[in-house]
Amino acid sequence: MRIVLDTQGGDRPPAELIAGGVAAIREYNIEVIFAGDQALIERELDRYRDLRCSIIDAPEIVRMDESPIEAARKKKNSSLVQGIRAVRKGEADAFVSPANTGAVMAAALFNLGRLHEIDRPGIGVLVPTLDGRRTLLIDVGANAECTPEQLLEFGVMGTIYMKELMGVSDPRVGLLNIGEEPQKGDQQALKAFTYLEQELPNFAGNVEPNRLVEGGFDVVVCDGFTGNICLKAYEGAIAVTVRYLKRHIDRSLLAKFGLPFLWPSLKRLKQEISAAQYGGAPLLGVRGVVIIAHGNSNAVAIQNAIRVAKEAVEHDLIGKIERGVHESLVHLGLAVEGSPA
Amino acid sequence: MRIVLDTQGGDRPPAELIAGGVAAIREYNIEVIFAGDQALIERELDRYRDLRCSIIDAPEIVRMDESPIEAARKKKNSSLVQGIRAVRKGEADAFVSPANTGAVMAAALFNLGRLHEIDRPGIGVLVPTLDGRRTLLIDVGANAECTPEQLLEFGVMGTIYMKELMGVSDPRVGLLNIGEEPQKGDQQALKAFTYLEQELPNFAGNVEPNRLVEGGFDVVVCDGFTGNICLKAYEGAIAVTVRYLKRHIDRSLLAKFGLPFLWPSLKRLKQEISAAQYGGAPLLGVRGVVIIAHGNSNAVAIQNAIRVAKEAVEHDLIGKIERGVHESLVHLGLAVEGSPA
Repeated sequence: MRIVLDTQGGDRPPAELIAGGVAAIREYNIEVIFAGDQALIERELDRYRDLRCSIIDAPEIVRMDESPIEAARKKKNSSLVQGIRAVRKGEADAFVSPANTGAVMAAALFNLGRLHEIDRPGIGVLVPTLDGRRTLLIDVGANAECTPEQLLEFGVMGTIYMKELMGVSDPRVGLLNIGEEPQKGDQQALKAFTYLEQELPNFAGNVEPNRLVEGGFDVVVCDGFTGNICLKAYEGAIAVTVRYLKRHIDRSLLAKFGLPFLWPSLKRLKQEISAAQYGGAPLLGVRGVVIIAHGNSNAVAIQNAIRVAKEAVEHDLIGKIERGVHESLVHLGLAVEGSPA
Repeated sequence: MRIVLDTQGGDRPPAELIAGGVAAIREYNIEVIFAGDQALIERELDRYRDLRCSIIDAPEIVRMDESPIEAARKKKNSSLVQGIRAVRKGEADAFVSPANTGAVMAAALFNLGRLHEIDRPGIGVLVPTLDGRRTLLIDVGANAECTPEQLLEFGVMGTIYMKELMGVSDPRVGLLNIGEEPQKGDQQALKAFTYLEQELPNFAGNVEPNRLVEGGFDVVVCDGFTGNICLKAYEGAIAVTVRYLKRHIDRSLLAKFGLPFLWPSLKRLKQEISAAQYGGAPLLGVRGVVIIAHGNSNAVAIQNAIRVAKEAVEHDLIGKIERGVHESLVHLGLAVEGSPA
């Protein structure tokens, strides 16, 4: 098992990401291929012994504000492009990066290609829900606008993901919307609802963002713009609530007595949310395991993202999605019988 | 000062809403006109003495799941329509309802009409931010899709609202988007950014949902679908975080010692968030003060919504918006000089 880690994406310095990679090597007994500035990586790894790892020297950086398609096309010596090419060439089993989401998507499309019969890959994020489970929200940023057919594909891929990797026996798929009733939403949502209701057997209706986090749906589909807005709103509200609560507790004399007893609980809460949030989002629909970590990922988050990649490889996620999508589309009359190209 | 309260909208029973109305009468020294089932209202009010109030007998109900335009057109004997007509006829100064947002919007459009030069009214919600202030997010549900010109109008109206009612001297206006950089978002967001940058003097750029709740923008504009998704995501994340925290604290033995000291703080937090959330959202751009309370409003929330209505009337919000919009549009070369019709 060899997993490439892009050490140059995201907000944190490479040293932080490398630390996460090292932890993954030790925890999961795998090999990590560090892509980035070779000299810097060697300096960081110097303090460790007996590490199963190697380095891809690719010092070119793709910045967070760069045009994704430009960057993926032109920066061929970036850790992003070189890392993904390693997967294509069979030199690695998976690729993990906290980089510019659009650039990762573009690089994956150019170098790995789409799965047969998938129109557009999507990025899925596992949202922790109040009932203790997770809901896969897809797409959260790969495609700003999506057709109903693309949402169907997200639903199909998400269903396979939740079955095969998360052990959910009968995944329920919802459509992210501003109301539960069928006639809700903008033009796109209305069309999507009608289409999904007709075509997706396990479609279970509209789901509002506040309802989603209570639980009850295993996969929720949306276009990338709406999904990204929703996700960032979740993140912002949680972060502000926790900070507000801590600030509020500080000010109250009464609460000050309670704080020593409470602190472990608050810390655990923050960790659980962070760990879930930063588990790493799979790019579903490309011909290779690509996991996008949160841009703000620290070492623990990177380690988790690598774990997600490992599990995806072990469960043959790509093969299962490819076969599963083909079967679903044949079943729905949207594709021709025969093994996928 | 006479304010109509629709006692039949929302999730809570009329008795709850009426209690909020009574509290408003006492607190703010105003008259409330209760619209709804007369017999029921009289029964509820029977326990009080010396109340400045009257009743509009309009027992027809507009349900949450009804088609807004149908309901507003056909259910002429509903508390919604009768209440708004009272404002049109000059029998009341403002209208407050926790009803079906679309129906309130439709009824307001049909019976009060738009302000001159406003293409589409929008619903603004004051989102509490970490810096202790509020940001007006508009539109959160009146219009699923919006043109850049309509977003500009929201920005102009929102600016006037924050200046005149919230005392903000130089309101900054942002565009809700999935990234801060100028080239971010879907087709609509890209067009909107370009337009707002050119046309709105106090436009301060894109703002992501997680950044919004930290503070720094006084008005944030968006189409109603995106705004509604964002708002519901905020609400859901906060609610789930608070419930998770309480559940988490219950389970921890250590934290159990802290709970008696902590409880007042948690309660205060919930109340602050609720009160802010449930302050009542103004419908900006119609020829009358219409405040839409949260569907889940309890008596306190209703009382707050009535207070918002009162303040809007006292500050001549409608007149200021009308004049302010006219001035802005003339200044921007988008309207002709001369007093608004």
